[in-house]
Amino acid sequence: MRVNPIKITEDMKVSDLIKEMGNSGVLGAGRTYRATELLSKMLKDPDMKIFFSIAGPLVPGGMRDIVVDLIKKGHIDVLITSGANLTHDLLESFGGNHYRDYGFDDEKLHESGMGRIGDIYTRSEDFEIFEKEITLILDEIAHKKNVSSIQGLIYEIGARIQDEDSIIRNAHLKGVPIYAPGIVDSMLGLQLWMFTQNSEFILDAVADMSHLSDIVFQSEKVGAVILGGGLPKHYTLASNLLKGGVDAAIQITMDRSEGGSLSGAPLEEAKSWAKARAGSNLVSVIGDATIIFPLILAGALDLSIEK
Amino acid sequence: MRVNPIKITEDMKVSDLIKEMGNSGVLGAGRTYRATELLSKMLKDPDMKIFFSIAGPLVPGGMRDIVVDLIKKGHIDVLITSGANLTHDLLESFGGNHYRDYGFDDEKLHESGMGRIGDIYTRSEDFEIFEKEITLILDEIAHKKNVSSIQGLIYEIGARIQDEDSIIRNAHLKGVPIYAPGIVDSMLGLQLWMFTQNSEFILDAVADMSHLSDIVFQSEKVGAVILGGGLPKHYTLASNLLKGGVDAAIQITMDRSEGGSLSGAPLEEAKSWAKARAGSNLVSVIGDATIIFPLILAGALDLSIEK
Amino acid sequence: MRVNPIKITEDMKVSDLIKEMGNSGVLGAGRTYRATELLSKMLKDPDMKIFFSIAGPLVPGGMRDIVVDLIKKGHIDVLITSGANLTHDLLESFGGNHYRDYGFDDEKLHESGMGRIGDIYTRSEDFEIFEKEITLILDEIAHKKNVSSIQGLIYEIGARIQDEDSIIRNAHLKGVPIYAPGIVDSMLGLQLWMFTQNSEFILDAVADMSHLSDIVFQSEKVGAVILGGGLPKHYTLASNLLKGGVDAAIQITMDRSEGGSLSGAPLEEAKSWAKARAGSNLVSVIGDATIIFPLILAGALDLSIEK
Amino acid sequence: MRVNPIKITEDMKVSDLIKEMGNSGVLGAGRTYRATELLSKMLKDPDMKIFFSIAGPLVPGGMRDIVVDLIKKGHIDVLITSGANLTHDLLESFGGNHYRDYGFDDEKLHESGMGRIGDIYTRSEDFEIFEKEITLILDEIAHKKNVSSIQGLIYEIGARIQDEDSIIRNAHLKGVPIYAPGIVDSMLGLQLWMFTQNSEFILDAVADMSHLSDIVFQSEKVGAVILGGGLPKHYTLASNLLKGGVDAAIQITMDRSEGGSLSGAPLEEAKSWAKARAGSNLVSVIGDATIIFPLILAGALDLSIEK
Repeated sequence: MRVNPIKITEDMKVSDLIKEMGNSGVLGAGRTYRATELLSKMLKDPDMKIFFSIAGPLVPGGMRDIVVDLIKKGHIDVLITSGANLTHDLLESFGGNHYRDYGFDDEKLHESGMGRIGDIYTRSEDFEIFEKEITLILDEIAHKKNVSSIQGLIYEIGARIQDEDSIIRNAHLKGVPIYAPGIVDSMLGLQLWMFTQNSEFILDAVADMSHLSDIVFQSEKVGAVILGGGLPKHYTLASNLLKGGVDAAIQITMDRSEGGSLSGAPLEEAKSWAKARAGSNLVSVIGDATIIFPLILAGALDLSIEK
Repeated sequence: MRVNPIKITEDMKVSDLIKEMGNSGVLGAGRTYRATELLSKMLKDPDMKIFFSIAGPLVPGGMRDIVVDLIKKGHIDVLITSGANLTHDLLESFGGNHYRDYGFDDEKLHESGMGRIGDIYTRSEDFEIFEKEITLILDEIAHKKNVSSIQGLIYEIGARIQDEDSIIRNAHLKGVPIYAPGIVDSMLGLQLWMFTQNSEFILDAVADMSHLSDIVFQSEKVGAVILGGGLPKHYTLASNLLKGGVDAAIQITMDRSEGGSLSGAPLEEAKSWAKARAGSNLVSVIGDATIIFPLILAGALDLSIEK
Repeated sequence: MRVNPIKITEDMKVSDLIKEMGNSGVLGAGRTYRATELLSKMLKDPDMKIFFSIAGPLVPGGMRDIVVDLIKKGHIDVLITSGANLTHDLLESFGGNHYRDYGFDDEKLHESGMGRIGDIYTRSEDFEIFEKEITLILDEIAHKKNVSSIQGLIYEIGARIQDEDSIIRNAHLKGVPIYAPGIVDSMLGLQLWMFTQNSEFILDAVADMSHLSDIVFQSEKVGAVILGGGLPKHYTLASNLLKGGVDAAIQITMDRSEGGSLSGAPLEEAKSWAKARAGSNLVSVIGDATIIFPLILAGALDLSIEK
Repeated sequence: MRVNPIKITEDMKVSDLIKEMGNSGVLGAGRTYRATELLSKMLKDPDMKIFFSIAGPLVPGGMRDIVVDLIKKGHIDVLITSGANLTHDLLESFGGNHYRDYGFDDEKLHESGMGRIGDIYTRSEDFEIFEKEITLILDEIAHKKNVSSIQGLIYEIGARIQDEDSIIRNAHLKGVPIYAPGIVDSMLGLQLWMFTQNSEFILDAVADMSHLSDIVFQSEKVGAVILGGGLPKHYTLASNLLKGGVDAAIQITMDRSEGGSLSGAPLEEAKSWAKARAGSNLVSVIGDATIIFPLILAGALDLSIEK
């Protein structure tokens, strides 16, 4: 098959750009087209449950609305993420913000009460409000039950968030479970610990697997959308081990494979572990998720992209 | 300044997607917006000469038409590239093609006459035609003059190419000089050497600098578009040393900075060498040029993107 | 200060090689020297507690003995790692092994019962033994107490391992706490969940922070050795937030910083969060931990390396 | 085959460290061992010519002495490098130096006459001396002949350098040809052009291939040592196309393969082009050459490392 030219015109639609990348079919452009086409199929397949995995600072990095919108449209069946992304979702729900353009002098930033994540900034006063608000919510929940799974706790938090732009609230409303196996390693985790110091409440570290394995077993097909690596990527793939692996997956990552870490591993490796089925449809795009995912999502949402 | 959410909708235009990335303003999305905005300004500035640098397999990788189109529209004033990209432009002009989907067994590929560049493939029979055709052209040129600069030779080749999709031909027609300081390190370079074995013709390695320095001195402002690193990136920046550095530049690269190589160097480093002016406008996007450049170009060509 | 030449001779000692890198002082060689010198100081400082963080497949990747040896010598005060590394430590303790040279055809590997981690391989029969043995141990522990912290559970497991080469056993014997905040996301985590299905045992997700914060508060100074990123890196740094940040740290990573993920973040960023003190001594080396850490450790163990 | 533990002891020799990495045999440690073992064999094989390729700032980065030493010991038969590395070799021969620890404010650096290459610094006054000295030398050479190949010119320069630590001088003395196909793209290239402005001297861009192809044809076997990518890597591999490809090669690089550029390409890709023989022995190590090459060279020089 020939590599055809990518043609760029004025006033192009995203889906036309993606199709041009498909005409070429090679290097990053080819991978982007194949990821878009696969995502489009995954979103349209009524029998496919979508497991959506987010690692890295995508919520503080401007992608909160994208996740909320996908939840509202029914495009996410299971969300797996880090405690940090949940923290930042709550931080915004409680009135906090994320900022930019404060430079890279970390000692000065600390003095002026700013925490830095790449070129994203947070304010310590926003975290103070977060701490006060989340403690009130935890108090309420702890009165209801003494032991909770992580997913169960997040669900209960979701019931108590007013912010209509919140991932946690919208997931609650749509019944989309959120798993955060590493929740303890975050500001939210720290507050959870502080709360338990004066309470009988216990967060059960492993209870989620019962809930999650039920979903996996009940899913005819599973498609995974994996942004970044880390615990969320591994948990997403490993939970599907129970049914012989995911049927389709796209991943967007900047990590390399040579060090052997799961974050940088090719999706194909998951086949050896039965975390992806033999013959499953797997596409990796090497790149920054804040560029690549909006691009392929905008393409995939256009009805005109499919084989 | 706040990080605002990226909003993705159905049937989006590329320029709308880019503006959404600008609303966020952080991480790769922010860099992509800033690169698009700067490219848009560069293309619209009548006093700015555009130096366009391409390294890596972008011509075989489907981006030939993009370069031709920019040349036709007057958006490229100087093209700096590798001998390999010129070879692949000529290969297509002489009827050859680039192919895909032939797998990664390099010993088998060799046996079946395929050469591999990532996931792009060439056929040895196409190279045989290339060799025959380029030799005829070199023969004609050598009858005209005995010594030529590299740019001068490419210009003369351009006069003898019929293919309307050729970069070399279109650059010739529009009077856009092409510099390829490393031309000898390519199949075209190999043919040049073979040709000189039975001829008096000499290719002058350094003569181009006279021609190029005249352009640099005559340019009120210079903006550089740098796809990939290598010799083309360095030559682009170093030639502007003569006037105190470029006024604006965008680069798209996957190379890292820690090893100290110029390919992965931040554009800011060029300021220490007076290859970029103090106060110049410089934007780097980390990513695959076959994804990022079509994206920002499609955005920049839309009239609505500017500050 | 001048960059001096690196001189290589026959039969060199590792510490001489490192000193030569220090003579140069630039690029990766310079970073390697500074990391070795800092590690040497950290190991010799009687007032400094060492927090040792391992992410990625370092236990299956041949670095188990290095960790055991550091524990035995009293060079690790706190170990933070992934459930996967603990799983692989136990797998070997129960008689299993890690293998190499089985190729990269993941569907075939699956058929022959091999799981792949980069170029490391495991056998499903070794995992079957792991499952049987760990269940027996969990059963014993659950009879002792109903609720456990993650660290507490690992400590109890360590008391029941006979293998003298085991990290978990040696940490138990030396009283070195092991934290694995993401333990649930591993084969060990899966067994824990299965075990709790027929038991009253609860693994408390957040209880570790009490134990860990006591250690942090009691440490006059903390030095962190961070191999790879992920949860272990973040937990290591974040736990030290309680005392104003680590006093010294080295990290070895291949991850990039541009995406904003903590795994690729420069250590300096931790200063903005008070996870590293203002003025703390921080060195990052970009590279593969299985090359770089043995190299700098061998250098640091030589008495002759210090300022 | 089993992955065995890497054992680190006090006062280790580099070759013992490398053997320990070989016991593991996986990830970066395994690659480092295999590269060392192959380099050792290459250096000991009397029928194998060594093509040594250097890209990136390795001469300013402290590795000049390593190259000189290999030349003196007869371990390099052909050197392929960039104009920049030759420039920095000459800069030091004329009394200049490379510096460190001047920070990263590029506008300030420029004001104080410093040029930056990663964390290496040069002084403009050293370049002024370079310009004066090289012009005197070029003047002498131009009186001898009117037209020169690039290799021929470097050879003549080498005859006029007094500095005993110079790569160019030592290569001259040992009759080791130096190829620098991209010489024009460097400060040395700039001086060459300026010199030709008032002289009849012509530098022939393609003449080197006659000389180089003779060497290739006369070499029973060729082994390539490739540090970094760029033109030197490609020229090294491509020149061996004439005899069916190199017989053995090691490369050390931080570049990735996904973009398709030759710099990041796996060595295996060269087999499809007959730039590496079917069945040739090829090892890539992902890492910083200023760390990895001194490490594997120190290992390979120890007589005890071979299969």
